[in-house]
Parts: sequence; structure tokens; C-alpha cells
Amino acid sequence: MNALGQTIKGFRVLLLWGLFSVAAAGSGYAARAKYVFLFIGDGMGAVQVAATESYRAAIQLGDEVPGSTKMVKLNMSGLPALGMITTFAHNRLITGSAAAGTALACGKKTAVGVVSMDPSGKVPYRTLAEAAKSRGMKVGIISSVSIDHATPAVFYTQQPDRKNYYEIAMALSASGFDFFAGGGFLHPTGKSGDRPSAIDTARKRGYRVATGREEIGALSAGAPVLARNRSWMKKKALFYALDKPSDHLSLGEFTKKGIELLDNPDGFFMVVESGKIDWASQARDAATVMSEVAAFDDAVGEALTFYREHPEETLIVVTGDHESGGMTLGAAGGVFETHLELLQKQSMSYARFSGMLAERLKKGISFTEAMDSAREVFGLALLGEAERMRLVEAAKNGDREAADRLLLSLEPFEIRKITEAWNMSLLPGNRRPGSREVFLKYGKYDPFTVTLARVLSAKVGIGWTTFNHTAVPVPVYAGGAGSDSFNGYYDNTDLALKIAGVMGVSLN
Amino acid sequence: MNALGQTIKGFRVLLLWGLFSVAAAGSGYAARAKYVFLFIGDGMGAVQVAATESYRAAIQLGDEVPGSTKMVKLNMSGLPALGMITTFAHNRLITGSAAAGTALACGKKTAVGVVSMDPSGKVPYRTLAEAAKSRGMKVGIISSVSIDHATPAVFYTQQPDRKNYYEIAMALSASGFDFFAGGGFLHPTGKSGDRPSAIDTARKRGYRVATGREEIGALSAGAPVLARNRSWMKKKALFYALDKPSDHLSLGEFTKKGIELLDNPDGFFMVVESGKIDWASQARDAATVMSEVAAFDDAVGEALTFYREHPEETLIVVTGDHESGGMTLGAAGGVFETHLELLQKQSMSYARFSGMLAERLKKGISFTEAMDSAREVFGLALLGEAERMRLVEAAKNGDREAADRLLLSLEPFEIRKITEAWNMSLLPGNRRPGSREVFLKYGKYDPFTVTLARVLSAKVGIGWTTFNHTAVPVPVYAGGAGSDSFNGYYDNTDLALKIAGVMGVSLN
Repeated sequence: MNALGQTIKGFRVLLLWGLFSVAAAGSGYAARAKYVFLFIGDGMGAVQVAATESYRAAIQLGDEVPGSTKMVKLNMSGLPALGMITTFAHNRLITGSAAAGTALACGKKTAVGVVSMDPSGKVPYRTLAEAAKSRGMKVGIISSVSIDHATPAVFYTQQPDRKNYYEIAMALSASGFDFFAGGGFLHPTGKSGDRPSAIDTARKRGYRVATGREEIGALSAGAPVLARNRSWMKKKALFYALDKPSDHLSLGEFTKKGIELLDNPDGFFMVVESGKIDWASQARDAATVMSEVAAFDDAVGEALTFYREHPEETLIVVTGDHESGGMTLGAAGGVFETHLELLQKQSMSYARFSGMLAERLKKGISFTEAMDSAREVFGLALLGEAERMRLVEAAKNGDREAADRLLLSLEPFEIRKITEAWNMSLLPGNRRPGSREVFLKYGKYDPFTVTLARVLSAKVGIGWTTFNHTAVPVPVYAGGAGSDSFNGYYDNTDLALKIAGVMGVSLN
Repeated sequence: MNALGQTIKGFRVLLLWGLFSVAAAGSGYAARAKYVFLFIGDGMGAVQVAATESYRAAIQLGDEVPGSTKMVKLNMSGLPALGMITTFAHNRLITGSAAAGTALACGKKTAVGVVSMDPSGKVPYRTLAEAAKSRGMKVGIISSVSIDHATPAVFYTQQPDRKNYYEIAMALSASGFDFFAGGGFLHPTGKSGDRPSAIDTARKRGYRVATGREEIGALSAGAPVLARNRSWMKKKALFYALDKPSDHLSLGEFTKKGIELLDNPDGFFMVVESGKIDWASQARDAATVMSEVAAFDDAVGEALTFYREHPEETLIVVTGDHESGGMTLGAAGGVFETHLELLQKQSMSYARFSGMLAERLKKGISFTEAMDSAREVFGLALLGEAERMRLVEAAKNGDREAADRLLLSLEPFEIRKITEAWNMSLLPGNRRPGSREVFLKYGKYDPFTVTLARVLSAKVGIGWTTFNHTAVPVPVYAGGAGSDSFNGYYDNTDLALKIAGVMGVSLN
């Protein structure tokens, strides 16, 4: 081909590209995506992600390569497009999961507690999942908390109150959506346990109810599915990744199975919620937060694997519904220092620790025994003066383990705080003072456990400001078809409209 | 024109657009910008901005329009492109202003404390300002803190230590840059005051030194300029916007004057630093932080005015060098509630309050008198039981002022904290315990003042976690020529490379 030919061929490419771009500009979206993933980290703000990135860097890179990056990107944060969304509810700056989920599912604001209806709880909103279904796409909804919880529910039902758990459970199978997985139902037979079972109803409506790794593994494409582990922890949620029994499916494994079952020529819309980043953030348990973020990110990894096979037709969007805990990457006592790698010592979640402690309290555990557990589980220790001196010497001689133990040793004022909390833990919940001062210290958590988690956070350089949600804007990470449109700073309602745009559906 | 003609004309446009896009894709940047603004909010993270947006909404919208947005965009956050940058230094996850500034100015990491040199402090880096100057653009550097401070300095000098204030001051006029404005020099005649004056040296090198509104107002294009107010507050910084004497120029006014003097056919590069968002964030003074962000945003507004006259050739980039204070939008005591509008009651900065208090302490001020000042300045009040009952009744009847006063009334545990801080404030600084426990409470600040600021923050729903910087990634807002390339999640060094790309200069 001569130079002119090359030029002409080049022009033709440009021309096609130009036309394509203009067409895209017309609809506002660069491409229609046939396979759409929406990942929602409940309570996940930019800091929950950045802390996990820093933790990975601290573990993987250590102190030996200070010139290297100090944050290791995750699957989600490595996606090319970045947005940031405001999350306020119709009636409150700091939102709740129902209002935030409604915004993400329907592109409209509502009041706190309302599921995909207007603030009065009278007018239903149309959801992305419904719109996708009516366009012939398959729909999957996965959550690590109960599947009737606000965040999954906003996609498949409209309810004036998120606490209508039975109505929500019944609505689930009425939706006809193709794949539900993760947690259980809070009130499968109603609040009083006297209503027809939502699970039996699902079966009657044609759902295959698969329980446990073997049954789920055996599923192939066909009738709609309700897939669950053999047991759940409290509140019908999946176990924390840090505590997960090995025979339980992880969020990533549910996602992988969902992709396998939903994959079809007409496309699918899949929502994956990690619901317990929120819970662990509210409890100020940094190690559990990061382990949940990592498990969530593994689920994003499954979508990325699928994306690589269908790069032109797949959209992946990852966001949070709001931030929780007021997490930051810097604590007063540490001044400019952080030691995130020390969180590796933590061997279970605050929740499991609290549960075990409650059992042992019934049997009359002593403070010394409790502190032994604190050392085992969180690495926090009371040191005798002789031991401290020995560790100081060893650390001077480059003993890293000794240095770590010193960093995790408790100072007198920390011991005082922990002792105070211990005395409060000894009181039955209903005999604890309900004052604002006590709430400021412990929230609604076991005082001893939450104090250990806070002390550990402060020592490694992570700060917290609340036991609830915050109004901090949260990040959006996006990749694949149409992902450019997710760049920028906008509202959570706009995010739903953008997804609708790329999916080619309407929310009206 | 017939249909075919229209089509052909359409094709030609597409063709040109296609060529342009490809050319841009080749260099990686969509357009070369002739007028480039880099705004740096020292210590400004996404929350400092979002809190200001929420505060504006709270004031402007009140409770009457809950359906309206609860965040009012600022000039900066209304820019179309959004990025987020990691800020870690070569040798620390939580950076300092010199290392962070070096990354923004030179596109390379360095160690904490080093000004635009490699981590060893031996190899100089080339800065964006130097590259712009050598390309024939004019250069302006404005800061609200001393002009020899790390953040402005990284653009005009290379120093192994940010504390080389005299060397930095002398380097300023050696740079030949065209416009320096804002704060003063910390050591204009050296640490011991026995060296040739940096100001006289600047004059000898041809700088016009203009002091005060009148002299600055009279300046027109010509020789390079060093422009300053008639006085500064401590550390040679501009006054906080909340405390600013009316005859002082604001950061916005310095920016406006800079634009006027730098505007020329060969373009300019202007850096505007708001240095005290950092200081106020470290002191946990929310009202002062937001007033500083607003003043900074006014300066961005001046750039926007210029942009509107030169939309094709102007780039505006706004970012932070790191976050400070660990600010969040949610505090434990408030649970899900916020009352940012109450910050309107605060009438001066923590710094001015501390200064006044120190004077009055010398004269023997009583706790009661100090609490009267706390009521006047922060709105925080001790209420007698009779007054409380009266306010509760009034609030029930819709009296907004009464409701506000109740929200700002002090609870017993808050009074205990304030009293404890007061007793510490009575001790001379050198007699205060240097323990980690005391540092955790007050940092390096006057204990009484910082406790009032913390209590007020907690009451309105703002949380803090440190008296220093954090490693929380910070936002980048960008608009104008080439601004698309600033979308995404990347490192602070990449930000400098992107600016160099759009300016068409090299940092090697």
C-alpha cells in the first residue's frame, strides 16, 4: 500500500471513530454494555480502600523498599475511571442504607428507611434491576448480609419501611430475578413466625434453593436460584472473611457462580453487596474492615475475569453507599507514623471475639484471662518492666518481632481505658449507663472489645470518629464499556442514571 | 445547502476532530494550555471540601427544602474533571509538605523535609515553574503562609532541608520568576539576623517590592514583583480569612492581581497555595477550616473568570498536598445528625482566640470569664437549669435560636473535659506533662482552645483523628484545556507529569 492508501485508510478509521464518538455523544454514553456489574461496598469510603492498599504495601513491601509505592492498587481501584459521589438522603445529610441504596438503584432520592419509593413511602420507583429484567437481561443479586437487607432489597422491591422483612422476603421470589445468593432471611415466616415460609414460597414459584458448596457447585443454567451457605452468623449474614469456615462460599465464589449461571446472549445485570464493611467500620475494627474490603475485591476480580473475555460489552462499577466509622489514615498518638503491618497479628473479628467473651463471662472469666485473649487475638500486651527492657535491647539489635511487640505493648493510660471498659463489660447491657458520654466511648458494642479495637487502630495509625455512618463522599471505580462516563464528582442518583444510560434502559 | 452538503460538511468536522483526537492521543494530552493555574490547598482533602459544601447547603437551604441538594458545589468542586491522588513520601506513608510539594512540582518522590531534590538531598529536580519559565511563560507564586514555606519553595528552589529559610529567601529573587505574593520571609536576614537582607537583594535584582493595598493596586505590567500586606500574623502568614483586617488583601485579591500582571501572549504558570487549611485542620477548628476553604475557592473563582475569557487555552487544576487532621463528616455523639449551620456562631479562629487568651491569662482571667469568652466566640455555653427549661419550651414552640442554644449547651462530661483543659492551660507550656496521653488530647495547642474547638466540632457532627497530616488520598479538580487527563486515581507525581504534558514542557 502506498502512502496515499495508508492515509486514506487512516482517514476511514478516523471517520468511523468520529461517527461512533458523535453517536455516543448524542446518547451521552460511549457504548452499550450487555453485561453490567454493580458492586456496592456498604460503608466503604475512599479511606477503607486506601487503608487496604496501604496495608498490602506494608505487608508486601515492608521497610526495605521505601522508594516503591506505599499503596498497592486493588482490582477495584485499578479500574481506569474514577468518580466521587455525594450520598445525602432526602431528609438527612448522613444517609442510611435504604435511602442510599434507593439512590443507586433508582436514580432518585428518598427518605431514610424507605426502600425504592418516594419519601412519603407511597409512590414506587423503578429499579435498574427491574429495567434490566424487562429488557430481557438476567438479574443476579448477591449480598454478604441477609438478602432481605436494605441494600439488596432496593433492587427487587418497593417498601415504605426497610424493616418490612417478611414482605421483602416474599417480594424476592415474586421478582422472578434469576440469582439470589449470600445471606438468609431475617423473618422468613414473618415477625411472629406464623406466616407461610418465604423459602417454600420461592420454591413454589420455581426457584431452586441450593444450600452448601456441593449443591451450589452442581447448579447449571436453568430455573432461578436462591443459593446459600449451610449456616450464617448473627443477623443471617455471611461470616466475616477473617472468621469464615473453610467449607463456606466466599462472596467471590458466589459471584463466580452467579456469573456462570447468568451468562447468556441477552446479557445480565448483577449487584454484589459487601454489607459488612459497614458493620466492621462502625465497630472500628480496622483489620476486619480491610479483610472485608479484600474479600469484596476478590469478587470484583471475578467480574474482571469475565470482562477480559467480553471487554467490549462489559461494564464494571464499584462504589460505596456511604462511608462508615469516619475512618482516616492517621491517628493523633502516632503523629506521622503508621504501622499497618501490625494488623496481621489480629486473628479474628471483633464480633467473634465479643461472642467468645460473652460466653466466657458467663463462666466468670478474670481480667487477666481476658487480657491473655487480647494478646492472642489482637497482639496487644501488658509488658512487665523486665520483658520491656529485654525487647528494647532486642529491637536495637534489629529484632523485628521485638520491635513489633513493643509497638503493641500497652501504656498506662491505655490500660486504664481498657480496665474501665472491662468493668463496663462486666455489667449486663441493660445496667450500663445510657449517657452520651458512655455512648461516645463504646457505641452499642461490647466495651472491652471495642476499646481493644480502638487502641489497636490508634497504635497502627488508623483513626475513627463515629459508630455510625458519615456524609463523606465515596469513590466510584469503573472499567469497561461506557466507563468514561463515570468520571467526575456527582450525586449518587446520577450514578444510577449513568448505569441506566450505559445499559440502554430507562428508570422512568 | 442540500442534505449531501450537510453530510459532507459534517464529515469534515468529524475528520478534523478525529485527527485532533489522534494527535492528542499521541502526546497523551488533548490540548496545550498556555495559561496554567495550579491551586494547592495545604492539608485539604475531600472532606475539607465536602464539609464546606455541606456547610453552605446548611446555611443556604436550611431545613425547609429537604428535597434540595445538601451539598452546594464550590468553584473548585464544580470543575468537570475529578482525580484522586496518593500522597505518600519516599520514606513515609504520611507525607510532609516538602515531599508532597516536590511531587507536585517535579513529578518525583523525595524524602520528608527535602525541597525539590532527590531523597539524599544531593540531586536537584527540575520544577514545573522552571520548565514554564524556560519555555517563555511568566511565573507567579502566591501563598497564604510565608513565601519561603515548603509548598511555595518547591517551585522555585532546590534545598536539602525545608528549614533553610534564608537560602530559600535568597533563591526566590534569583529565580527571576515574575510574581511572588502573600506571606513574608521567616529569616529575611538569616537565622541570626546578620546576613544581607533577602528583601534588599530582591530589590537589587530588579524586583518591585509592593506593600499594602495601595502600592499593590498601582502596579502594572513590568519588572518582577514581590507583593505583600502591611502586616502578617504569626509565622509571617496571612491572617485567617475569619480574622482578616479589612485593609488586607485576600488570597483571591492577590490571585486577581497576579493574573493581571502575568497575562501576556506567551502565557503563564501560576501556583496559588492556601497554606492554612492545614494549620486549622491540625488544630481541629472546623469553622476556620471551612472559612479558609471558601477563601481559597474565591481565588479559584478569579482563575475561572480568566478562563471564561480564554477557554481554549486555560487549564485550572486544584488539589491538596495531603489531608490534615483526619477530618470526617460524622461524630459519634451526633449519631446520624449534623448541625453545621451552628458553626456560623464562631466569630474568630482558634489562633486569635488562643492569642487573646494568652494575654488575658497574664492578667489573671478566671474560669468564669474564660467561659464567657467561649460563649461569645464559639457559642458554647453553660446553662443553668432554669434557662435550659425555658429554652426547651421555646424550642418546642419553634424558636430556632432557642433550639440552637440548646444544641450548643455543654453537658457535664464536656464541662469536665473543658475544666481539665483549662487547668492545663493555666500551666506554662514547659510545665505541662509531655506524655502521649496529654498529647492525644491537645496536640501542641492551647488545651482550653483546642478542647473548645473539638467539643464544638463534635456537637455539629465533624470528627477529627489527628493533630498532624494523614495519608488519605486527596482530590484533584480540573477544568479547561486538557483537563480530561486529570480524571482517575493516580499518584501525586503523576499529577505533575500530567500538568507538564498539557503545558508542553518536560521535567527531565
